[in-house]
Amino acid sequence: ARTGDPEVVLGQGKRPEQVVTLLRTLHREHPDRAVLATRLAPEALDLVARELPQATVDDVARAAMLGPLPSPRGLVLVVAAGTSDAPVAAEAALSVAAHGAGVRRVDDVGVAGLHRLLAVRDELAAADALVVVAGMEGALPSVVGGLVGVPLVAVPSSIGYGASLGGVSALLGMLNSCAPGIGVVNIDNGYGAGVLAARIARQSAPRGTRAAPGAQP
Amino acid sequence: ARTGDPEVVLGQGKRPEQVVTLLRTLHREHPDRAVLATRLAPEALDLVARELPQATVDDVARAAMLGPLPSPRGLVLVVAAGTSDAPVAAEAALSVAAHGAGVRRVDDVGVAGLHRLLAVRDELAAADALVVVAGMEGALPSVVGGLVGVPLVAVPSSIGYGASLGGVSALLGMLNSCAPGIGVVNIDNGYGAGVLAARIARQSAPRGTRAAPGAQP
Amino acid sequence: ARTGDPEVVLGQGKRPEQVVTLLRTLHREHPDRAVLATRLAPEALDLVARELPQATVDDVARAAMLGPLPSPRGLVLVVAAGTSDAPVAAEAALSVAAHGAGVRRVDDVGVAGLHRLLAVRDELAAADALVVVAGMEGALPSVVGGLVGVPLVAVPSSIGYGASLGGVSALLGMLNSCAPGIGVVNIDNGYGAGVLAARIARQSAPRGTRAAPGAQP
Amino acid sequence: ARTGDPEVVLGQGKRPEQVVTLLRTLHREHPDRAVLATRLAPEALDLVARELPQATVDDVARAAMLGPLPSPRGLVLVVAAGTSDAPVAAEAALSVAAHGAGVRRVDDVGVAGLHRLLAVRDELAAADALVVVAGMEGALPSVVGGLVGVPLVAVPSSIGYGASLGGVSALLGMLNSCAPGIGVVNIDNGYGAGVLAARIARQSAPRGTRAAPGAQP
Amino acid sequence: ARTGDPEVVLGQGKRPEQVVTLLRTLHREHPDRAVLATRLAPEALDLVARELPQATVDDVARAAMLGPLPSPRGLVLVVAAGTSDAPVAAEAALSVAAHGAGVRRVDDVGVAGLHRLLAVRDELAAADALVVVAGMEGALPSVVGGLVGVPLVAVPSSIGYGASLGGVSALLGMLNSCAPGIGVVNIDNGYGAGVLAARIARQSAPRGTRAAPGAQP
Amino acid sequence: ARTGDPEVVLGQGKRPEQVVTLLRTLHREHPDRAVLATRLAPEALDLVARELPQATVDDVARAAMLGPLPSPRGLVLVVAAGTSDAPVAAEAALSVAAHGAGVRRVDDVGVAGLHRLLAVRDELAAADALVVVAGMEGALPSVVGGLVGVPLVAVPSSIGYGASLGGVSALLGMLNSCAPGIGVVNIDNGYGAGVLAARIARQSAPRGTRAAPGAQP
Amino acid sequence: ARTGDPEVVLGQGKRPEQVVTLLRTLHREHPDRAVLATRLAPEALDLVARELPQATVDDVARAAMLGPLPSPRGLVLVVAAGTSDAPVAAEAALSVAAHGAGVRRVDDVGVAGLHRLLAVRDELAAADALVVVAGMEGALPSVVGGLVGVPLVAVPSSIGYGASLGGVSALLGMLNSCAPGIGVVNIDNGYGAGVLAARIARQSAPRGTRAAPGAQP
Amino acid sequence: ARTGDPEVVLGQGKRPEQVVTLLRTLHREHPDRAVLATRLAPEALDLVARELPQATVDDVARAAMLGPLPSPRGLVLVVAAGTSDAPVAAEAALSVAAHGAGVRRVDDVGVAGLHRLLAVRDELAAADALVVVAGMEGALPSVVGGLVGVPLVAVPSSIGYGASLGGVSALLGMLNSCAPGIGVVNIDNGYGAGVLAARIARQSAPRGTRAAPGAQP
Ligand SMILES: Nc1ncnc2c1ncn2[C@@H]1O[C@H](COP(=O)(O)O)[C@@H](O)[C@H]1O
Ligand SMILES: Nc1ncnc2c1ncn2[C@@H]1O[C@H](COP(=O)(O)O)[C@@H](O)[C@H]1O
Ligand SMILES: Nc1ncnc2c1ncn2[C@@H]1O[C@H](COP(=O)(O)O)[C@@H](O)[C@H]1O
Ligand SMILES: Nc1ncnc2c1ncn2[C@@H]1O[C@H](COP(=O)(O)O)[C@@H](O)[C@H]1O
Ligand SMILES: [Mg+2]
Ligand SMILES: [Mg+2]
Ligand SMILES: [Mg+2]
Ligand SMILES: [Mg+2]
Ligand SMILES: [Mg+2]
Ligand SMILES: [Mg+2]
Ligand SMILES: [Mg+2]
Ligand SMILES: [Mg+2]
Repeated sequence: ARTGDPEVVLGQGKRPEQVVTLLRTLHREHPDRAVLATRLAPEALDLVARELPQATVDDVARAAMLGPLPSPRGLVLVVAAGTSDAPVAAEAALSVAAHGAGVRRVDDVGVAGLHRLLAVRDELAAADALVVVAGMEGALPSVVGGLVGVPLVAVPSSIGYGASLGGVSALLGMLNSCAPGIGVVNIDNGYGAGVLAARIARQSAPRGTRAAPGAQP
Repeated sequence: ARTGDPEVVLGQGKRPEQVVTLLRTLHREHPDRAVLATRLAPEALDLVARELPQATVDDVARAAMLGPLPSPRGLVLVVAAGTSDAPVAAEAALSVAAHGAGVRRVDDVGVAGLHRLLAVRDELAAADALVVVAGMEGALPSVVGGLVGVPLVAVPSSIGYGASLGGVSALLGMLNSCAPGIGVVNIDNGYGAGVLAARIARQSAPRGTRAAPGAQP
Repeated sequence: ARTGDPEVVLGQGKRPEQVVTLLRTLHREHPDRAVLATRLAPEALDLVARELPQATVDDVARAAMLGPLPSPRGLVLVVAAGTSDAPVAAEAALSVAAHGAGVRRVDDVGVAGLHRLLAVRDELAAADALVVVAGMEGALPSVVGGLVGVPLVAVPSSIGYGASLGGVSALLGMLNSCAPGIGVVNIDNGYGAGVLAARIARQSAPRGTRAAPGAQP
Repeated sequence: ARTGDPEVVLGQGKRPEQVVTLLRTLHREHPDRAVLATRLAPEALDLVARELPQATVDDVARAAMLGPLPSPRGLVLVVAAGTSDAPVAAEAALSVAAHGAGVRRVDDVGVAGLHRLLAVRDELAAADALVVVAGMEGALPSVVGGLVGVPLVAVPSSIGYGASLGGVSALLGMLNSCAPGIGVVNIDNGYGAGVLAARIARQSAPRGTRAAPGAQP
Repeated sequence: ARTGDPEVVLGQGKRPEQVVTLLRTLHREHPDRAVLATRLAPEALDLVARELPQATVDDVARAAMLGPLPSPRGLVLVVAAGTSDAPVAAEAALSVAAHGAGVRRVDDVGVAGLHRLLAVRDELAAADALVVVAGMEGALPSVVGGLVGVPLVAVPSSIGYGASLGGVSALLGMLNSCAPGIGVVNIDNGYGAGVLAARIARQSAPRGTRAAPGAQP
Repeated sequence: ARTGDPEVVLGQGKRPEQVVTLLRTLHREHPDRAVLATRLAPEALDLVARELPQATVDDVARAAMLGPLPSPRGLVLVVAAGTSDAPVAAEAALSVAAHGAGVRRVDDVGVAGLHRLLAVRDELAAADALVVVAGMEGALPSVVGGLVGVPLVAVPSSIGYGASLGGVSALLGMLNSCAPGIGVVNIDNGYGAGVLAARIARQSAPRGTRAAPGAQP
Repeated sequence: ARTGDPEVVLGQGKRPEQVVTLLRTLHREHPDRAVLATRLAPEALDLVARELPQATVDDVARAAMLGPLPSPRGLVLVVAAGTSDAPVAAEAALSVAAHGAGVRRVDDVGVAGLHRLLAVRDELAAADALVVVAGMEGALPSVVGGLVGVPLVAVPSSIGYGASLGGVSALLGMLNSCAPGIGVVNIDNGYGAGVLAARIARQSAPRGTRAAPGAQP
Repeated sequence: ARTGDPEVVLGQGKRPEQVVTLLRTLHREHPDRAVLATRLAPEALDLVARELPQATVDDVARAAMLGPLPSPRGLVLVVAAGTSDAPVAAEAALSVAAHGAGVRRVDDVGVAGLHRLLAVRDELAAADALVVVAGMEGALPSVVGGLVGVPLVAVPSSIGYGASLGGVSALLGMLNSCAPGIGVVNIDNGYGAGVLAARIARQSAPRGTRAAPGAQP
């Protein structure tokens, strides 16, 4: 990509052989960078594993990666509300790593069990950027955004049924968050969230060197 | 009403004189019960105040009441996320009282400021029923429903703009709550929520006399 | 769950072995309480039946339960409009039992055949809480709510086609009910309705000991 | 109109003088038939009353009529759920009369008060066609259609707020009715309903002369 | 059914054996009337054909019928825009016959080929009621309703793709028809349309005996 | 504009003085071309008339134009279904003229009165491009597109109420047209339709010089 | 078709044998023109290839064609944003050819890589009509329409996930384009776009013979 | 706010006096920080100007600010597509300043006039964060996101009409952007975008001190 980031193949709607060919070609053109493929069907994941043994294949994230990872700068925390949100969180984490930032996961801290979330508050506050994944009512970003002032990227997941409308309810919840400073990406788009969070984290000054907000120079 | 509850006039779409006449007539027919009028325009509130001086006129709730209140049984807590939710919360509180339960208000405990909510946790747990009003992403019922197991009626309010879609986003959030045991009413329908909560509270056994959940007899 | 209720596994999107493992683990941690799993695929129902022979597997409700039921307090009536609503009604009934209330079913009393509904009116009036399931236009809660003043939880079902929009029409019908005091849950969410109704019923005072509505003390 | 029916002016979006001119011109061209104008703003109703004193102006229906009514054949019953539905019911009744059928009104028989509806059951069964108007959840046509087998035209009204979505919820309810044989028209379209019902009624054989359904010849 | 009409089984969501059992039982209870089953899956159609050899199985209509047809009174014309609308038109035609009216089909007269429609204008005008089926933009009822003043029941079909939204576009087109006197049923609901049209046709006076519209007595 | 077309001011949301200033400035910069302003409020129309007496102010189109019209090439026919569509048709006609094509209007040829449309069929066939405006069900483009093979730009108008959803129903109808070769623009966007139709017409070869479709060279 | 264009079979919802029969019949009736079949399932594509060896079968376009192509007049450029849009672009290109215009393809010029689009600007400007296909946010037509004043037909594709809503987001983007003169067709409707573009191109005067826009005669 | 940021008053739905009182109180409690009020009606802007002369009142942004601005760190560029987007861009710019980052505006660089956008490409690339405001089809963020890899916050504006659906089309466009790394906020929510962009910018290391993306340490 022109922006200096890794090339990414959107696997959805592509045949397994197309995915393998694209990964191989892009890797040859950019041997010094990671090449990523997302939204891969099980058959594509299998074929990549067989044909490109040097690739990292992440079955949960439904994604594959080829080539060297950039050295990480800054830290992104990927926070997920429920266990069903794992695929989206994994795609986000992989994308963060491929785009040059460090990454840690915090799982199963949904808003109906606040104690688990409150227990990790300091960890949240210490990150350079947060990716927060939640389905159903999508309330987790509001609660996290009320706890810490770290740049936050919210990802609605399609987990739910009936009036969850395939993730639209979670999306609307996040867009209407009463906590400000939350950027929202498309439903299940862990990739897009990971890119934005990595860009923020890797350009961040180390914590110790930052002035306090509002401090006079 | 056949269910033994107070008669209620839906003021919306009625002329002020119609409202006054209906209140007067219903009060004459049922002098022993409260008669309620909701969703009144300012002109209707004014005319009721002038023509029916014995009526209680609640400008915030946009409602009016005539006749004796039933003696309260049980306790309903009406919880509101933001100050803009006050009209809906006031309508709910008035409706609870008119339907025979005790009522207390807890305001301004939105999910972006958890400490205020956590501070009233015991009060929430001690109620017989909760009415929880929230606009925008409508996340408050999920958080409250994760804290206490009290029967909870959620009211989405139309507060917000843009993608709040006139309260539809809050409504969807509440319907998709990851905390179970939440009954949702129409957008801004403090009245319906108050009726349901009052019915629950007034038939509840006093706290002390209840068996612990799951206790063997 | 922190609220003292049984642990519940949402089966949707989980592999059969995950469901079995979760049920087994939660049962071990809480041997004194019921553990419930809902929205199970046929394969999961089968595996649970094979691997956990002591579990109750309800094929209609698409749910399974492990561990002792709490002794029931109060009575919930689960009312269904049509035979196609049976899975949702069964999930609700199971959830009521798991959450500590007594439960009875009334089936096939849709609004296009009023005589069947009118025939059970006294039974409806004697319950401590009602769960009312209906698909298509979702009109049953309005009619029931006009007959009796019992706390009512309405469940829209996804039964229908075309403009039923997967249950959204029934959901909208219930939210706009002209009878007050109806709390609505998500489409097909028998579980959530059961939890709310059980909480209401089990805290209710025995019928004989309640004061008449509006009675002076 | 080519179909032999009265000419009708859709008043919405027309200036009062345009309405008067159109009524006058059409009346001159068809002095032997009624000419109808619907959806008139208050200013248009006033101007018609002043300029065309021989016109019938119906302020509730927001409509005006000029010229002789056809002699009525058959009977249409216009049934309305609530008092707020009166404008739509009045528009329907006027349109029935203008299109050559007899008409009677039955008001305030909403589904939350079944006894009033059951009291008029014989009257419903004796009509040649029914127009049933209801807002909010729009459940009345389902209930009526379950009681009698008379051809039924359902009109959703825009009465309601929040999730009533300007009448869309009532419309969806009627389209998904579990009682068959219900034709639905646009929200608030009393006129269209009146035309269809009048056409049905005026071509109906007198009750006494009809064979019983299913009778062998 | 209480309305004197045939019993009807909604096949959707029922297992083939359930359908067979229901048909058999209802036929035994009402040997003198037709019993209808609609929206049958291919497996159900097959099983009915095998188990109930005396039944009429209509593969296009995806429906089956058992028992004697009532003798037909009046005439319904079922008009379809395209060949893809055939299943819905067939369901409508079968339902008309089962509900006691005569029926004829007119196919492939979509609005993009007006000459075919204009060629059958007299046939349209001679019917007692029309059922008009169309998908995509759903414009056919408007054009037919502008040609003849016969009572018209419009059925949107789910034929189309993309912005046809599963038939919603056709439904909206029909509800907003600029020709008055059109009653609309649910998407693909040939059954409901057939019931309404049959009721209208079978109570109609023979053509020759009707007074001209507007004629003085 | 870079495309060689006139500059256009979108008046909506601009104050009257802003509109006047923009028209004046753009006219000064491009004295040899027309400058157009659309979607003007009545106050803006008045101010333009007072301040720029040399401007053409079209009250029906809610638009104003300044500077010399290009000499017209080719012919666009602007066809409107109903009289309420006049503002949109007028905006389209003005835009056609400003963009260098000849223009004629055909009004009041809605699909419920086919004879008027059939009467102008030859005129339709002789145009180089058609703009077809219709509200409510938006069926007119389908019927016109079935009659003639001329490039057709369809404009849904916001005329209607209830389920017309502010023009969305007409828009959907046009997008799903069963006649191919129809390009659709935004609701009420006479301007955009006029630009496209003018571009088509002005580049068209004179009728006499065109080869018949499909003719071998 | 009455408009002089090739007959077209809409393959969707038809059985493979029906498609073959229709192609064969139409070809026999019109041996001098192309006959097209679109939206064919893989089975239909296979059967056509086997049964009609003289047919052109385009697997990417999911379409087949039989009979002689008309000789091309004018030039249509079919522009696609991404590789996933290829099926729609191929259907459009085939339809252009079948309707008598010349056609060229420009692929993979999405708005996130402007340099590729800017590189073909002269080619875009030289066409007689453009078909522009894009999924996801559907922004490509706006950018192209800002670069050149050529008549432009935009086709939203259903490529995307989550909030792309099956192509509705791309459709809305194109309808709201800030560049004027864009006609939009249904989602994935390459066929309809090809017909409109071919009609425009084949009636266009050769570039050299056209007057400059706005030139005085 | 607990996050260390300025207190902000949401003016919408509050009376002018309430706004003044809230600003005054919050300023007294936090004299060392800025206090912001957004979405103010004209009357509120006037009253603030009169009652709080030391406040900055921004009529375009419909906002007011009281108290000292923090010293700016980092740089946010606020980019707007059209002149009508000015209020949202102004609200964003003010919010950036109040939250401690430097800010510059780039206006009128919509996608239909690429040359203006390409002319500022270096300026875009040099910012620490971008806020990109666009209405109608909302395509600008995709194009900007394809040009530079700077963290980007997209704000859909409600500018448009018809199918723009009050900003929903622009919102959907931004969520479906084919350029990754874009965080979206609610329609017209310049405030939320400003907060997120300021948080990103103020924690960024100075440009010169950052490692190139992907560089090995
Ligand atoms: N999971 C994803 N969600 C959204 N966009 C993606 C995803 N994966 C890849 N992309 C985008 O799709 C583009 C590649 O599309 P393609 O050329 O069809 O492989 C990349 O430039 C990415 O920006
Ligand atoms: N049928 C259901 N519908 C909605 N929520 C459910 C359902 N079953 C379980 N849940 C909720 O899902 C949570 C468990 O999710 P999980 O940890 O993914 O198994 C429980 O706490 C329940 O509150
Ligand atoms: N009625 C209209 N509908 C849609 N777009 C329009 C309309 N009138 C003008 N425009 C577009 O709006 C742009 C001008 O916007 P502005 O700079 O805000 O005046 C022009 O370039 C036109 O393309
Ligand atoms: N891909 C397509 N999209 C939309 N309409 C089509 C398509 N292919 C064919 N059609 C239309 O469908 C009609 C044929 O329908 P049928 O008679 O059912 O085969 C033709 O007249 C075409 O106008
Ligand atoms: Mg969640
Ligand atoms: Mg809230
Ligand atoms: Mg039902
Ligand atoms: Mg009603
Ligand atoms: Mg059709
Ligand atoms: Mg029209
Ligand atoms: Mg695209
Ligand atoms: Mg824009």
